[in-house]
Amino acid sequence: MIASIEILGLLAGGLTTASFVPQVYKTYKSKSADSLSLTMYTVFFVGIILWLIYGIYVNSIAMMVTNSITAILSLLLIYFKLRFK
Amino acid sequence: MIASIEILGLLAGGLTTASFVPQVYKTYKSKSADSLSLTMYTVFFVGIILWLIYGIYVNSIAMMVTNSITAILSLLLIYFKLRFK
Repeated sequence: MIASIEILGLLAGGLTTASFVPQVYKTYKSKSADSLSLTMYTVFFVGIILWLIYGIYVNSIAMMVTNSITAILSLLLIYFKLRFK
Repeated sequence: MIASIEILGLLAGGLTTASFVPQVYKTYKSKSADSLSLTMYTVFFVGIILWLIYGIYVNSIAMMVTNSITAILSLLLIYFKLRFK
């Protein structure tokens, strides 16, 4: 029971995490981040850190793994936004 | 114990959900979505739906509420991307 839920969680987290890869690639390749909102990614980053803590509390492997990776990817977009402006 | 975890989850979800509002506002106001990746938001939307199902399975109020709202906001960004291109 727990295992099948975690597989669903890993699939969910895999998609939400993977969704950041094309944005990171597009932003890096175009060297343009004009339409990206710095406010969005900063608030999002803080939220992801809290989801990570939540995942540790509820002992969800899916939330721990995927939120860690998403945190790194959103930090990268914040870096691009500051660098390419 | 459960209650304080759910407060943390609602705070986390509140931030990740709220992070979409400035992007929605910025995109609507500028009528420009050039830097936004359609692939990102489509994959993200599907992932959020799976997180919502995950939240229902593990009976997490925080995940149910916030993922529902995030799903609506990301759908709105997909609509803008298609409309403003």
